Amino acid sequence: MSTKPSKHLVTFPNPSPGRDYLIRHECPEYTANCPVTGQPDFGTIVVLYTPDKLCVELKSLKLYIWAFRNEGHYFEQVTNQILDDLVKAVKPRRMTIAGLFNVRGGITTRVVARYTKPGSRGRAKR
Amino acid sequence: MSTKPSKHLVTFPNPSPGRDYLIRHECPEYTANCPVTGQPDFGTIVVLYTPDKLCVELKSLKLYIWAFRNEGHYFEQVTNQILDDLVKAVKPRRMTIAGLFNVRGGITTRVVARYTKPGSRGRAKR
Amino acid sequence: MSTKPSKHLVTFPNPSPGRDYLIRHECPEYTANCPVTGQPDFGTIVVLYTPDKLCVELKSLKLYIWAFRNEGHYFEQVTNQILDDLVKAVKPRRMTIAGLFNVRGGITTRVVARYTKPGSRGRAKR
Amino acid sequence: MSTKPSKHLVTFPNPSPGRDYLIRHECPEYTANCPVTGQPDFGTIVVLYTPDKLCVELKSLKLYIWAFRNEGHYFEQVTNQILDDLVKAVKPRRMTIAGLFNVRGGITTRVVARYTKPGSRGRAKR
Amino acid sequence: MSTKPSKHLVTFPNPSPGRDYLIRHECPEYTANCPVTGQPDFGTIVVLYTPDKLCVELKSLKLYIWAFRNEGHYFEQVTNQILDDLVKAVKPRRMTIAGLFNVRGGITTRVVARYTKPGSRGRAKR
Amino acid sequence: MSTKPSKHLVTFPNPSPGRDYLIRHECPEYTANCPVTGQPDFGTIVVLYTPDKLCVELKSLKLYIWAFRNEGHYFEQVTNQILDDLVKAVKPRRMTIAGLFNVRGGITTRVVARYTKPGSRGRAKR
Amino acid sequence: MSTKPSKHLVTFPNPSPGRDYLIRHECPEYTANCPVTGQPDFGTIVVLYTPDKLCVELKSLKLYIWAFRNEGHYFEQVTNQILDDLVKAVKPRRMTIAGLFNVRGGITTRVVARYTKPGSRGRAKR
Amino acid sequence: MSTKPSKHLVTFPNPSPGRDYLIRHECPEYTANCPVTGQPDFGTIVVLYTPDKLCVELKSLKLYIWAFRNEGHYFEQVTNQILDDLVKAVKPRRMTIAGLFNVRGGITTRVVARYTKPGSRGRAKR
Amino acid sequence: MSTKPSKHLVTFPNPSPGRDYLIRHECPEYTANCPVTGQPDFGTIVVLYTPDKLCVELKSLKLYIWAFRNEGHYFEQVTNQILDDLVKAVKPRRMTIAGLFNVRGGITTRVVARYTKPGSRGRAKR
Amino acid sequence: MSTKPSKHLVTFPNPSPGRDYLIRHECPEYTANCPVTGQPDFGTIVVLYTPDKLCVELKSLKLYIWAFRNEGHYFEQVTNQILDDLVKAVKPRRMTIAGLFNVRGGITTRVVARYTKPGSRGRAKR
Repeated sequence: MSTKPSKHLVTFPNPSPGRDYLIRHECPEYTANCPVTGQPDFGTIVVLYTPDKLCVELKSLKLYIWAFRNEGHYFEQVTNQILDDLVKAVKPRRMTIAGLFNVRGGITTRVVARYTKPGSRGRAKR
Repeated sequence: MSTKPSKHLVTFPNPSPGRDYLIRHECPEYTANCPVTGQPDFGTIVVLYTPDKLCVELKSLKLYIWAFRNEGHYFEQVTNQILDDLVKAVKPRRMTIAGLFNVRGGITTRVVARYTKPGSRGRAKR
Repeated sequence: MSTKPSKHLVTFPNPSPGRDYLIRHECPEYTANCPVTGQPDFGTIVVLYTPDKLCVELKSLKLYIWAFRNEGHYFEQVTNQILDDLVKAVKPRRMTIAGLFNVRGGITTRVVARYTKPGSRGRAKR
Repeated sequence: MSTKPSKHLVTFPNPSPGRDYLIRHECPEYTANCPVTGQPDFGTIVVLYTPDKLCVELKSLKLYIWAFRNEGHYFEQVTNQILDDLVKAVKPRRMTIAGLFNVRGGITTRVVARYTKPGSRGRAKR
Repeated sequence: MSTKPSKHLVTFPNPSPGRDYLIRHECPEYTANCPVTGQPDFGTIVVLYTPDKLCVELKSLKLYIWAFRNEGHYFEQVTNQILDDLVKAVKPRRMTIAGLFNVRGGITTRVVARYTKPGSRGRAKR
Repeated sequence: MSTKPSKHLVTFPNPSPGRDYLIRHECPEYTANCPVTGQPDFGTIVVLYTPDKLCVELKSLKLYIWAFRNEGHYFEQVTNQILDDLVKAVKPRRMTIAGLFNVRGGITTRVVARYTKPGSRGRAKR
Repeated sequence: MSTKPSKHLVTFPNPSPGRDYLIRHECPEYTANCPVTGQPDFGTIVVLYTPDKLCVELKSLKLYIWAFRNEGHYFEQVTNQILDDLVKAVKPRRMTIAGLFNVRGGITTRVVARYTKPGSRGRAKR
Repeated sequence: MSTKPSKHLVTFPNPSPGRDYLIRHECPEYTANCPVTGQPDFGTIVVLYTPDKLCVELKSLKLYIWAFRNEGHYFEQVTNQILDDLVKAVKPRRMTIAGLFNVRGGITTRVVARYTKPGSRGRAKR
Repeated sequence: MSTKPSKHLVTFPNPSPGRDYLIRHECPEYTANCPVTGQPDFGTIVVLYTPDKLCVELKSLKLYIWAFRNEGHYFEQVTNQILDDLVKAVKPRRMTIAGLFNVRGGITTRVVARYTKPGSRGRAKR
Repeated sequence: MSTKPSKHLVTFPNPSPGRDYLIRHECPEYTANCPVTGQPDFGTIVVLYTPDKLCVELKSLKLYIWAFRNEGHYFEQVTNQILDDLVKAVKPRRMTIAGLFNVRGGITTRVVARYTKPGSRGRAKR
């Protein structure tokens, strides 16, 4: 497996697809550039999901978060993009992404977005 | 983009208008003048909302909060005005503004106001 | 505006009468005399309300609290009187007064009283 | 008013009988003798009630708690007796007594008893 | 009263059988032998109950806990046995026993068992 | 009883099969190898269950956790396998396994899986 | 006394000049403009001193801190200027000024400066 | 002033060169690449110094920390390099750099280096 | 560089041999086997040193700690061995090793050993 | 090695007799009988020492502490006896024993005793 930053999310088969269960990854080393000022932003990305047939592989998640390092992203957009990318790759039953970003201009920002698979019941609890 | 205080709130298109999600900004550097005594007041403004078609741009929110610096405002009035201004600019599905003001005359004050778009269900959770 | 203690509560027009919202004042500098022992009592008065057409002006609230300083009051009576006085002056939709009194004779006392305008729904949440 | 220990509980008229409100007294200086060993026990008595026509006077509550000092009492009995005595004297709408007793023989004990006036709705919330 | 370890639980009449109330004993000095290794185990036993006609006498509870000192007991068995013994002696309306045991083999164990008298409503709240 | 690592889970008869009660084991000394990097992972395994006819013996649980020491396991797979193995050996009414794993690649992971015996009501509360 | 911002510091005679003692003022409502960006900075100014013949009057200290509101200041310069101004006005035996400034550009800054009157022994302890 | 990352440290004249005082900058947004693995490292850099004739300008310090973002650095080397660069630019009387780095390979690392100007007495206290 | 466990400690040249400074590594993932029982032990190893001409490379330290995983070691012996191995490889001016080991048989153990290079002054401070 | 309680302390050769270092064992599962009341006492025994030629083996220390379980001991006596027994068996350079005993009669007791080998310098630091 590569050790380069990569937006490619590797998955592996859910070892227990017959069971509804919760996986939570906390990634405190997110960094990207601010599209307005060009300066680096920092934050923590929390991924919480109930897998269906696939799970996200941890090292590829690290490389995925790493791949934002030299790109420009708004807080609102990146939280939704991470949700979209992970939903597309992992096709979970339910998923929540929370972006907890460092203070900028004296203001602290949090963004929380959720996905529920059509036909699935309830939502991922945090 | 200007770096002068400005009541003009800049918006950008909601990157995920198809999804109900939460954005929270905490602004601990609010200051204005007391209309009764003329002396400066200080406080924290919390903005929590579910965007519809627009999001508020973070730097313009900083300049907007800055623009109260040399104006006179009551706590109750300014909390409601910030809600009105942000609702007018951002047209959110749901929004809550909480003003947490420093002690004055030995008294600590909090004001919390909420908005729900007509036809929208529920209210923004804190 | 006077700077003498005064039971007269000054109000100003609610800047947003069309909206149900919350105002909370915490006044940790209440003091009065104990009617039984004549000794000074101390406490914190919390005022929480949803205004209707009027708000209580903060400096007059400070002078009002000050006006109890040389009077004799039971804890139970003064909490209810403050609720009665504020309801009469401010005519709120909902109001809660909590009196948190310092230890006396080895005993700590709290008194909480609530008002809901006839025809108004729910009660002020703390 | 006497300053001797006394089981006589003095009351005064509820200043706001038209309103349901809460009074809470915390008495950390309870002491009595253990009926089994004759040795002193210590604890905190919490009194929480909604008054009807009467309130308990604070100094008499102090003298009442003091009056247990040279008597023998089980934890369970004294908590219920305090509830019975206060209910009899104050005739509240609702009342809760919690006895939090110090470690004895390596064992820590708590006893909680509640009273609701017949025909009254709900119970005193702690 | 004896001061020897004894499985005999002494009771006394519930001073307030007409009232549903809670008694909680926390006994941090439980010790017994492990039936597998023969070595001593340590833990805290929490007893929570609503008495019916009887209460457990505190000193006899201490001697009862002491009586396990030289016996062999599994954590699960002893928690249930204490519940059975206390239910048999005290015939409570509701009772909960929680056994919080010290680390053994790098593993910390808790066992919680509850009893509700047939025909009694609800369960003892902790 | 052996003191070698072993996947064989020893059980003993539930001492109180007539009662629904909770057993909780916290095992902070889980370690295994990462299947991707071959390097050791560390974590805490929490086992919470309501037994039916059998309980898991504590020493065999220690040896079972020990048996992962030189094997390769994903976090998601091992949490589910521990649930499957324990359900198969103990046949509980309800069981929850929580795996709390140490940071890897700057990311902290938790996995929580639950089992309810068909026909059994509710789920094990944590 | 005026209620306008003013750099004029009012003093009053030290009531106990025969004794070495400490006075500490904590002023959390400092704000000024950044000379580099023109944007407002925020911080807390701590004043700690041992008076000689004079003490600083509290209201004039508030107006003095207020007077920085519309001026441009570096953190290092303003901390030293406050020390210089206060030393000149109050002529203390020892004085420490600590400036604790809000995060700017992701960096939090503290500046601490001390003064000891020539011929005085020791320094002000914080 | 530029807003590009830059190793060029801008200084300004110490506003109070006649006084020994302390400046502390805490920079929690340090990131660089690991020279061994090529992957990003994260940490907090604390700068503590007593200036002589110069101070480091805060925005240039931010750009300086930013300039490590795409370079490879060992923890020990970068802490000493930051000390060397800052000593060279600022020529302080005393300076301490503490590097507090995020966990890597299960290991947390701190590096602390100090500089004292020849002929200067004592060292910078943290 | 290998990713196998290895007792070979890799070093790199101290980037600042002209300066006395401190490096601290905290390794919470130490595990080995108990020579008496054969069962796994767990603990945290803290390495604190002032380098002379060499520093220990972090990844090789991780592999070194890993290499104890399948060996038998007493707490006292392993703490001293780690000090001996690191002193031999790194030849520091001063070094302290603290071993903080998990509870075994109900007993928690700590071992602390220090080394000072002959002719070097003082000892490494923790 | 036996698994019976035993006053026989097993030792093993100090792996690093050429170095002065510290070993600390904390034993929270001490229990014995009170000689006055015959009832069980509980406490924590802390052993801190600098070994000379011998170390105490951990399992034998556990069995040694266990051997007090059915004996009668005063707090002061047992702390000194443990010091005497360990000094005799281990012949340390320096040793401290601290006994931290549970509350009895509302009183918590600590006893600390130290030994320094004749001709040895200093005392074991805790």
